[in-house]
Amino acid sequence: MSSAQSKASLPVIKRLPKYYRYLTSLQAEGRDKISSSELARMMGTTASQVRQDFNCFGGFGQQGYGYNVTALREEIGKILGLSLPKKTILIGAGNLGRAILAHMEFAEKGFTIAGIFDRDENFVGEILEGIPIQHTDALEQFCQKEKPSVAILCVPKMASQDLVRRLMGLGIKGFWNFSHYDIGVYYPDVAVENVHLGDSLMTLCYEMQALENKKGE
Amino acid sequence: MSSAQSKASLPVIKRLPKYYRYLTSLQAEGRDKISSSELARMMGTTASQVRQDFNCFGGFGQQGYGYNVTALREEIGKILGLSLPKKTILIGAGNLGRAILAHMEFAEKGFTIAGIFDRDENFVGEILEGIPIQHTDALEQFCQKEKPSVAILCVPKMASQDLVRRLMGLGIKGFWNFSHYDIGVYYPDVAVENVHLGDSLMTLCYEMQALENKKGE
Repeated sequence: MSSAQSKASLPVIKRLPKYYRYLTSLQAEGRDKISSSELARMMGTTASQVRQDFNCFGGFGQQGYGYNVTALREEIGKILGLSLPKKTILIGAGNLGRAILAHMEFAEKGFTIAGIFDRDENFVGEILEGIPIQHTDALEQFCQKEKPSVAILCVPKMASQDLVRRLMGLGIKGFWNFSHYDIGVYYPDVAVENVHLGDSLMTLCYEMQALENKKGE
Repeated sequence: MSSAQSKASLPVIKRLPKYYRYLTSLQAEGRDKISSSELARMMGTTASQVRQDFNCFGGFGQQGYGYNVTALREEIGKILGLSLPKKTILIGAGNLGRAILAHMEFAEKGFTIAGIFDRDENFVGEILEGIPIQHTDALEQFCQKEKPSVAILCVPKMASQDLVRRLMGLGIKGFWNFSHYDIGVYYPDVAVENVHLGDSLMTLCYEMQALENKKGE
């Protein structure tokens, strides 16, 4: 890791995808330059926050003239490691797995979906996005041959525990985890990004109640 | 809002769903009591963090004897507002909308799906979870009659901007937002919970690259 990168704290890193997303929109609109204050306004933050975040990575060029949209987007993409090739398998071809497969732009982030697995015999052989669904029993053979590094887990919590143990033994280094099994608690050295949709929905509950209470005050 | 509630900061609130999730598992396993240290170990945090979090809400009972699982779960559920009834509409019946509809336990969090809308004529009339898909043109009429308070947005960013403006005018107070349109930036007084799956995937990219760099050191 470069010294510039290691200066960035987790909250800064967590904001990088959002910068990247806005810069991608700006680039698509044909914008050449953007000032820290305009970028901040778009993103609902402050210019000082933007400059502070970018300073963690060396500043990204002259502030007085604004940032070059294309160059800045490329720099942030590099820091995020979007071009690092990541051979990926999807486990769980139910509704959620299918939606994610159809919805996400994996290739532009360096992910190549190499295999799809489900324990439901009825799904086996079905083709999704050009890839045939295999039974999870075939995981060992597939991983030993193809050596994927990332697994997307769209399975129930009960199934995850055993699957994660198997996948760790098969060389999987990163998990995009939609299950409720907290992988990071048991395997601290692996890259895990959890998507807890239920937690997100409960947070919305809290916010709705807070609005109600505010109204009643 | 009670004074106990108003003491809790955003990071504490963001952790409440996770506590609730673990307590639900413990309850299902038939556990009566849990100590702060055991709960902390399960969740990958510290006992002092757990006690500190709970103190924001009055402490939830005697620490020496452990917490009563059922009572603690119920208290946290109340704080989260899970029992507040929230009449909800889903906009966007593509892959993602369908997966969310099939996957989430809305009822136990107080959400009732009252209507489903899509702008694709081909979907109109199809029944999902017992509810017929309507055209988005019917939103005005439906909302004036049914008065939903929450909208789940599973539509592209381009469509969101216009939809959110319409929905705000129709009395929607909360958004579960899967689109890339940052509602909160434009409407600060509404409850918004964003699920940016692309951002999550980019964070995983970063973590994978960090692992690579660590290996190379």
